[in-house]
Amino acid sequence: MLTFYFAPGSCALASLIALEESGLAYEHRRLNLANGDQRQPDYLAINPKGRVPALVTDRGVITENIAIMAYVAQIAPAAKLAPLDDPFEFAQMQSFNGYIASTVHVNHSHKGRGYRWTDDAAAIETMKAKVPQTMTEAFALIEDKMLKGPWVMGEQYTIADGYLFTMETWLPGDGVDRSQFAKVSDHYARMHERPAVQRALAVEKG
Amino acid sequence: MLTFYFAPGSCALASLIALEESGLAYEHRRLNLANGDQRQPDYLAINPKGRVPALVTDRGVITENIAIMAYVAQIAPAAKLAPLDDPFEFAQMQSFNGYIASTVHVNHSHKGRGYRWTDDAAAIETMKAKVPQTMTEAFALIEDKMLKGPWVMGEQYTIADGYLFTMETWLPGDGVDRSQFAKVSDHYARMHERPAVQRALAVEKG
Repeated sequence: MLTFYFAPGSCALASLIALEESGLAYEHRRLNLANGDQRQPDYLAINPKGRVPALVTDRGVITENIAIMAYVAQIAPAAKLAPLDDPFEFAQMQSFNGYIASTVHVNHSHKGRGYRWTDDAAAIETMKAKVPQTMTEAFALIEDKMLKGPWVMGEQYTIADGYLFTMETWLPGDGVDRSQFAKVSDHYARMHERPAVQRALAVEKG
Repeated sequence: MLTFYFAPGSCALASLIALEESGLAYEHRRLNLANGDQRQPDYLAINPKGRVPALVTDRGVITENIAIMAYVAQIAPAAKLAPLDDPFEFAQMQSFNGYIASTVHVNHSHKGRGYRWTDDAAAIETMKAKVPQTMTEAFALIEDKMLKGPWVMGEQYTIADGYLFTMETWLPGDGVDRSQFAKVSDHYARMHERPAVQRALAVEKG
C-alpha cells in the first residue's frame, strides 16, 4: 500500500502526477499548509522535515520529489516514466529534476517563504521583489538549453515533465508571463491534455 | 573518457569523492570561481548554468551532484556506492541527497551568494546572520533523524556520505560547532580515514 501526503498548490503536484501516470494504486492525504498541518506531531512522525510531499510505503517513508518520482518510475516500469535502462539518460533526467529542486523551486520559495533565510521583514520584501527576475532567468535557461521538446527529454514523456509543469503553474503568481517562452507554453498546454495530469489536478482540487 | 569540472571549496567535492571511490578513470579540470571561470564562454558551452560540478562523458554533459553521483554509482557497480538493486533503498539515499541539495546547500548559499535572491545589500547581511541558525537546524535533523550511522544509510557506505561530508566541511565557516553533533562528528572523522576521500581532498588542494 502506498499513501501519499500532499498539499494543494505545493510542489507535491509533481509526485502526484507521477503516481497518476504510473497506474499504481495509492491513497492520498491532504494537508492544509496554511493551517500548519505539516507541523503537527502526527505528520512530523511521518516526515520530521515538516514538508510535503511524503510517500509512505510498506517499508518506510520516502520524501523529496526527486526521490519519490524516481521510485514510482522504478516500481512501475510498464508506465515508462523514466529511461530506467540507460544510466546516462537517467542522469540527464535527474539533472533536470535537480535543477528544478535546488534552483527553480528555491527561487520561487523566496516569494512566500523568505522567513526561512532571514528574520528581517524588510529583507523579505526585497526577496519577493526579485522573484520575477530569478524565475524568468531560470525559465529562459529551460527554454533555450534544457527543454528538448515536446517533452523535457525529447519524444519520451518522463517524470521530469510533471516537475516542470508544477513550476509552470507557479509562473503567473511569480509575476512571469509564460507566453514569452514558446516551448514552455507548448509543454504547459500538452500537459493539460494528459488524462493523468487532469486526474492529478482534480485530486489537488479535492 | 570522463572529464570532471570542479572548483575547490564547492559542492563539487561530493562528486569528486564519488569518482575517487568508483575506481573509474577520469580527468579533472579546476575552475577558479573567484576569477569567474564559470562564466567564461568555453565553460558556459559545457554547462550553461555557470555552476560546478559538471561531468563530461562521451555522450554529453551531466550536471547536479545528485545526478552525477548516481550515474557514477551506476556505471561502476563493483564499487557498491549505492543500493542499485533496491528501488526503496535507492530512494531513501536520493531522499537524503535531495535534502542536502535543496535545503542544506541552499541554507549555506545564503552566506556567500545572497545576491542571487535579493539586490539589497542590507538584506544580504541579514541573510548571512541567519546561516548559523539554519545550518544548525538542518544538522540537528540530520543527527537526530536521518544519519543512521556509521554511514548515512547504515552499515553500507554510499554516495550520500560524500555529499554529507562536503556539508560537514562547511560547518566551521558557517559558524556551527560540529562537535555538538556526535554522529556527524564521528562520520566526519571516518570519512577522513578513507583513501578515496584523502585523494579527493588532494585533488581539490591541487
